[in-house]
Amino acid sequence: MEKQEMMYEGKAKQVYATDDPDRVIIHYKDDATAFNGLKKDSIRNKGVLNNKITTILFNELNRRGIATHWIETLNDRDQLCKKVRIVPLEVIVRNVVAGSMAKKFGIDEGTELKTPVYEICYKNDELGDPMINDTHAVGLGLATREELDQIYEITAQVNEALKEILDQIGIRLIDFKLEFGKDSTGRVLLADEISPDTCRFWEKGTDKKLDKDRFRRDMGDVIGAYEEIYGRLSQWVNTK
Amino acid sequence: MEKQEMMYEGKAKQVYATDDPDRVIIHYKDDATAFNGLKKDSIRNKGVLNNKITTILFNELNRRGIATHWIETLNDRDQLCKKVRIVPLEVIVRNVVAGSMAKKFGIDEGTELKTPVYEICYKNDELGDPMINDTHAVGLGLATREELDQIYEITAQVNEALKEILDQIGIRLIDFKLEFGKDSTGRVLLADEISPDTCRFWEKGTDKKLDKDRFRRDMGDVIGAYEEIYGRLSQWVNTK
Repeated sequence: MEKQEMMYEGKAKQVYATDDPDRVIIHYKDDATAFNGLKKDSIRNKGVLNNKITTILFNELNRRGIATHWIETLNDRDQLCKKVRIVPLEVIVRNVVAGSMAKKFGIDEGTELKTPVYEICYKNDELGDPMINDTHAVGLGLATREELDQIYEITAQVNEALKEILDQIGIRLIDFKLEFGKDSTGRVLLADEISPDTCRFWEKGTDKKLDKDRFRRDMGDVIGAYEEIYGRLSQWVNTK
Repeated sequence: MEKQEMMYEGKAKQVYATDDPDRVIIHYKDDATAFNGLKKDSIRNKGVLNNKITTILFNELNRRGIATHWIETLNDRDQLCKKVRIVPLEVIVRNVVAGSMAKKFGIDEGTELKTPVYEICYKNDELGDPMINDTHAVGLGLATREELDQIYEITAQVNEALKEILDQIGIRLIDFKLEFGKDSTGRVLLADEISPDTCRFWEKGTDKKLDKDRFRRDMGDVIGAYEEIYGRLSQWVNTK
């Protein structure tokens, strides 16, 4: 499968057409951004690691019967995926309070939530990706009620699967962001990536941050954290 | 029923104990505030009009079998109500885009929504009453899932009832804010008030604003708008 024209370029990835109208190639870049693009840098090898981490996790989700866009990984930076129309929502799952939720409610980072919090944001750079709720999403035509139901069902399955996998490699899943797309038949699939760019991963016991917060907060050794996550995951794949 | 000690004073109302532990007297003041208390004034007779308007509407909601805290109105400024513990949520219903929603999404005020938008805000002055969603409310212990279900059910009934009543008096119900409480048995009741302080009312045909936006936006003749709403409602009561 060969890359054809670039259809879309995001902050951390590029999407290329292929000769199959239902398949795309997604290319992982080293670019890192934070705070709605205000902070930018390039982190050598980040794209390779996020591609490898996402590959392990999406492969495992597929294996468990969760519908994702991922088909196969072609090389260090490229994945073959099902072509989808992205639903313009970011779905955030919070198991533990951190980041913007800690600030918004004046709650200490690290506070466990009794039940997971799901947030949806309208993907719109101009408006600053505002947090919305289901009635906004339906009222503004961003998704139907039925699509939201499918999205939340997959989201809950992904949260359970990820928590279980990460627990086995000594990582606490604090929160993460998912994106969804619809294939040509209208079926909702998990899209985008699952990586330290889109999740908060804390080392069990020490609560050491092994994710993009090291970049956002200038904590140093960003790539070391991504390597640590990939190292533990690849060992998990090899021993299971 | 006599007023005893003041239990609570809000921006526009005071709540007094009575000799019955399950009943309170709610007193309507003339104070007006906007923008989380940043703008303040006193509007002569506003409390009287809001008491009378709320009386007509809560009486009608009770008559339709919707559970509210209102029992009877005692005089120009006082209502006898069931004592409730207020759920710390503001429930906002939007039939037409206006105010903060217009700003947030860059949509023109007056745009009709295909389906009503419901928003919930955490009543917390220090945090600025942030918009939250159901999973925050449950996760933070502000309400249970069952309480939220009851709240949304009553909210939908109130919206249908109010739209129907206001339509008969030539008023468009743009949006409104409700608050809920739980009585000593844990039952969820509609509480607070329904008035031009808590609703956006536009005159059909002209879209003239007949609500608190006249105060927020310095449009003049605030009390004339409240009198207009009360006049139309009292005529409606007398002729039905």
